[in-house]
Amino acid sequence: MSLTERILLGPGPSNPYPEATAGLSAPLLGHLDPEFIRILERACDGLRTVWGTANPLTLPLSGTGSIGMEAAFANTVRPGDVVVVAVNGLFGARMCDVATRYGAEVVRVDHTWGEPVDVERVLDAHPAPAVVAAVHAETSTGVESDIAALGAALRARSPETLLVADCVTSLGGMEMALDAWGVDVAYSGTQKCLGVAPGLAPFTFSERAWRRRVASPPVWYLDLGLLGAYVRGGPGGRAYHHTAPVAMVASLESALERITREGVDAVAERHREAGRRLQEGLAEMGLEPFAAEGHRLPQLTTVWVPEDVDSVKVRERLLTEYGIEIGAGVGEYASTVWRIGLMGHNARPDRAELVLAALRRVLDRPAG
Amino acid sequence: MSLTERILLGPGPSNPYPEATAGLSAPLLGHLDPEFIRILERACDGLRTVWGTANPLTLPLSGTGSIGMEAAFANTVRPGDVVVVAVNGLFGARMCDVATRYGAEVVRVDHTWGEPVDVERVLDAHPAPAVVAAVHAETSTGVESDIAALGAALRARSPETLLVADCVTSLGGMEMALDAWGVDVAYSGTQKCLGVAPGLAPFTFSERAWRRRVASPPVWYLDLGLLGAYVRGGPGGRAYHHTAPVAMVASLESALERITREGVDAVAERHREAGRRLQEGLAEMGLEPFAAEGHRLPQLTTVWVPEDVDSVKVRERLLTEYGIEIGAGVGEYASTVWRIGLMGHNARPDRAELVLAALRRVLDRPAG
Repeated sequence: MSLTERILLGPGPSNPYPEATAGLSAPLLGHLDPEFIRILERACDGLRTVWGTANPLTLPLSGTGSIGMEAAFANTVRPGDVVVVAVNGLFGARMCDVATRYGAEVVRVDHTWGEPVDVERVLDAHPAPAVVAAVHAETSTGVESDIAALGAALRARSPETLLVADCVTSLGGMEMALDAWGVDVAYSGTQKCLGVAPGLAPFTFSERAWRRRVASPPVWYLDLGLLGAYVRGGPGGRAYHHTAPVAMVASLESALERITREGVDAVAERHREAGRRLQEGLAEMGLEPFAAEGHRLPQLTTVWVPEDVDSVKVRERLLTEYGIEIGAGVGEYASTVWRIGLMGHNARPDRAELVLAALRRVLDRPAG
Repeated sequence: MSLTERILLGPGPSNPYPEATAGLSAPLLGHLDPEFIRILERACDGLRTVWGTANPLTLPLSGTGSIGMEAAFANTVRPGDVVVVAVNGLFGARMCDVATRYGAEVVRVDHTWGEPVDVERVLDAHPAPAVVAAVHAETSTGVESDIAALGAALRARSPETLLVADCVTSLGGMEMALDAWGVDVAYSGTQKCLGVAPGLAPFTFSERAWRRRVASPPVWYLDLGLLGAYVRGGPGGRAYHHTAPVAMVASLESALERITREGVDAVAERHREAGRRLQEGLAEMGLEPFAAEGHRLPQLTTVWVPEDVDSVKVRERLLTEYGIEIGAGVGEYASTVWRIGLMGHNARPDRAELVLAALRRVLDRPAG
């Protein structure tokens, strides 16, 4: 065990809400205890609220965010199905890998990293795919894409196609309305804007997707038929599938209670304000934004590392001298981009000021 | 969040070691933080110690115990491979389901529930299978099988076959020597004898299994090639795969530190003593054991529900009047068998006395 305290301003994990930490270490309950079932149900209700969906099959999957992506494709893709994937960063690229493993014929629509998804190009890629998939908030680039626009255009063009949205870095930090947007399948992680430790993948699956699901997917652990029988119950009660990660679920429930009490809109506004202050401050310091203007995520800011600066050394000094973690870039941008997150409990002006002050010292920039 | 306290004496989760709870709520670290990497490495070392293996690829998978079973077959089974499964309870049966989904030709060797695995019958089932799989400690029946004998006989008969062992309910509560036994692949859960909340699946994979692994398994999340690059690192350092569940890993590391400090043999002896006292006390009360004599797990005791007794009502009274959770039976034994666990932190004489006293009151049996 380490007692070192960090201010986690990378791309996640972020520092949990205090309520989430309290929930994590609350007395442990059995996974079939009536008290735990109530906690699980409240967690599922809370996920419906932050996601803006009425999907009965909304639950935290027992794994980290990536398992949500795995479950999305495992339960929707049959060998030979056409899956159109919008790729504008690492997580879009990963979707192609995952879908391919389930036998999909992937049609990959590449975008320049840092740009949002181009709805028309994605829809022109195939007339009637089984699935279209895109990332709402690209963790690798700090870019928001317009899932509402993608959903509306898709419904008009190809009403049978299922829409999968990666919401790992958006859920809990932005206003969302999955049902109104026409999203069928979405997943997230707990360690970003939801303000919980990593370990669960919030997941939601529409009735339309349910009717067309793969009956017996290759992955037993992620078989939604079996999972649904535990989470939703049935005529014979709840059927045991696997032992739920009870401490993590209690932590998620506590964080969701905190978020819905503060108000989803207020939480989103808090993320916007913190992000705005950070992005203004970085500009004042002369740092150039990486993500395209008008599509920058407030909760995850990407900037170019100044040309004469050693990216690794700066991150090391921030960690050792100030206890602040920020993230490196991804792939070819590993040493040329920084990613700074203000997510969940860290979406506050004081956190923005803190990282700006520390960066200014480490980069030796004059006060603004 | 619930603040209700339970004494968890079912088949798991058990009450965590206090050290594990402290680790769970310690300040959160990033998954690439040098401090966290040290914690992860110590956790992997601790798993090697309790398992008795030198396998470099030993790690906690990011899911509950069942994901260990999934990973075992996902990384070893190619379509058409013959997999012999010893079935003497629910988890053996589940192995058949999981292996079948990866395309295995499963040869199922059924045993009466409550009996241990019959080594000769299992080996006679096929001359040279790709995989033989068995459960070390069957959670559904409370039976121990002799994996050492199975391993020795298998090596003599079919040296190329991989041996998979389910150690969900044994790891951390029994002396184990995987390498000496000839086990290639093993998995466990954290919420039983390891004394940690549910949420991780300890996993180990031998060098022999590594050489014959499936290069690109259907499940991206459990691809050991990718996972190994993060856990073991490589020439270019550690490659990001997914965000590790840092709080759960810190909790596991704390529990393993506690177990190895107490001593693996001493911990196993503590489990034996607690189980012996419980099984003696139940016999004094006139309750009949379910598991075959000589093969009863000390950490998980199964008894027949007396004929005139309503199983559900007794469990409800134990929970509401005494705060004690015990488990029902599984499948056809749901209302005729109880499962009482004394695992991890609960493997103590006082816990045995406590559940015996409460049961005696609820069943209205005279003092022994």
